Amino acid sequence: MAFRVGIDLGGTNIKAGIVNENHEILLEKSIPTLAHRPADEVIHDMAKLAEALIREAGVKQSQVLGAGIGSPGTIDAKRGVVVYSNNFGWENVPLGEKLSDALQLPVRVSNDANCAALGEVKAGAARKYANCVLITLGTGVGSGIVIDGHIFEGAHAGGAELGHTSLVADGEACTCGRRGCLEAYVSATALIRDTRRAAGADPDSLLWRFCGGDLDNVNGRTAFDAAAEGDSCAQAVVERYIRFLGEGIVNAVNLFRPDIVLLGGGVCKQGAVLTKPLNSYVRQYCFAGDKGFLPEIGIAELENTAGMIGAAALITDGTE
Amino acid sequence: MAFRVGIDLGGTNIKAGIVNENHEILLEKSIPTLAHRPADEVIHDMAKLAEALIREAGVKQSQVLGAGIGSPGTIDAKRGVVVYSNNFGWENVPLGEKLSDALQLPVRVSNDANCAALGEVKAGAARKYANCVLITLGTGVGSGIVIDGHIFEGAHAGGAELGHTSLVADGEACTCGRRGCLEAYVSATALIRDTRRAAGADPDSLLWRFCGGDLDNVNGRTAFDAAAEGDSCAQAVVERYIRFLGEGIVNAVNLFRPDIVLLGGGVCKQGAVLTKPLNSYVRQYCFAGDKGFLPEIGIAELENTAGMIGAAALITDGTE
Repeated sequence: MAFRVGIDLGGTNIKAGIVNENHEILLEKSIPTLAHRPADEVIHDMAKLAEALIREAGVKQSQVLGAGIGSPGTIDAKRGVVVYSNNFGWENVPLGEKLSDALQLPVRVSNDANCAALGEVKAGAARKYANCVLITLGTGVGSGIVIDGHIFEGAHAGGAELGHTSLVADGEACTCGRRGCLEAYVSATALIRDTRRAAGADPDSLLWRFCGGDLDNVNGRTAFDAAAEGDSCAQAVVERYIRFLGEGIVNAVNLFRPDIVLLGGGVCKQGAVLTKPLNSYVRQYCFAGDKGFLPEIGIAELENTAGMIGAAALITDGTE
Repeated sequence: MAFRVGIDLGGTNIKAGIVNENHEILLEKSIPTLAHRPADEVIHDMAKLAEALIREAGVKQSQVLGAGIGSPGTIDAKRGVVVYSNNFGWENVPLGEKLSDALQLPVRVSNDANCAALGEVKAGAARKYANCVLITLGTGVGSGIVIDGHIFEGAHAGGAELGHTSLVADGEACTCGRRGCLEAYVSATALIRDTRRAAGADPDSLLWRFCGGDLDNVNGRTAFDAAAEGDSCAQAVVERYIRFLGEGIVNAVNLFRPDIVLLGGGVCKQGAVLTKPLNSYVRQYCFAGDKGFLPEIGIAELENTAGMIGAAALITDGTE
């Protein structure tokens, strides 16, 4: 048996799992990241965490093929370097090399959303497929692209960022400095902004009931909940949200033509409320229409373990 | 010595060249396509053309590794099938297999813009690089993406279509059935439309002089010519054109992070008038800004031979 360590480096916690050849997590552990420490301290803790996992799982060091890390930020996967992470204040941190030195194991690094996509392909909603685009709808919009079973990174660091392709000329400001990016329309943050705006413009909307009369209570579910009760103001917010998500998905399909497009992140809990209209949208608007290959639109399955499973799968045994 | 045949299947002409290991065309020939004939007749003529080339070039059949075809339309490159070509009225034509049977040689097929991009990487403006995005600005907008020296097709037929990613929600109608695609803003067709509109709204514009007082004479140069004379109306058309082109390029960079982005097609003859502002635009707006890898924006070099050279390079000798 061979094992890999999969590490999900988050802004709040470092989660690590020891993963077997069937992409099952045998044991997982988590520690606080304390992200604003120097990088070396964070990496030291990651190494200790991985060593503890290997020890407690009763796995011999010789059975561990290596460790993969899913990290936020702009990653140079070829060199294992975190080129830039705004959350961590990191620039050009050789994360792969440093952890490899500490563990005396091969280490590979990719972006966290890339790892989540690979995890879904290995053991989640895309396990029947080799080609998957994952779009995570959270505070921001992450994306992971898997082609022929491997993460597609683009040629240099900073590719595969579907969230930062623009949909709306001169549109909403995005965190990246541009205007009109997909992230500025379909992140949970954007949905909350649009829900608040709609409620602010319609004092009679049910949205007010669902936020207890206080727009500070609006969250990523508010518009969906009020829309389900038949509120036309909320329905307009939901329809617009799905429409922009559809545009982003059609753009992704016209470029990557995966077998499946998966939605992850908090908003994806809406399930078929999203996927039913999105499957229709894709059939209507993809290039070459029904003459081209049309992927299914689905919901990610693995939730919090996708990143660890995908990170572990960055380490290949040479036969894959 | 080994040779390949590179075939550029166009709506008007079929051009074919015999290409050596240095990506040089030794001999080329061209015949009319007569595109609305049955596919078998077109393929028969392609085979005769390739055979004549091989014969006239004095190359032994045993020295020819195969033939590559750059074809318009939606191509399934893995199977060598033209899934759909609107120009030709073709659906599911097994072009690769049929030409291979006729020539008794390996045949590979890709989209024409993909082949042009590969040609530029092998022997043109991207020859120093392995990673290139080519955007052709003609009647439509084609795109070819080369990663690690190979065409990136996406997982299934109908990928790598940058021209059909949307930039403007509810924007200009595109030939693909969507609204707001890059093609609907930066094709020569779109430029002509916008030049006519601008002239129509400004009877004092120099645009009228450059089209001889007749909007039917507007072409892809008219706005650039009048802008160079200082006409503010034309300058606004050019600035808007470059701005949308910049948005499309930034989207491509945020996904593919190539070494270089090349512009091809008729409009690219404007040279530095395009590339100078576009290089600035990319530096300002790409994800992670100057912390990420920033490609150069340049102009394609090979013009009419890029397709043949790239098509020939679809045939590899196993060492590449």
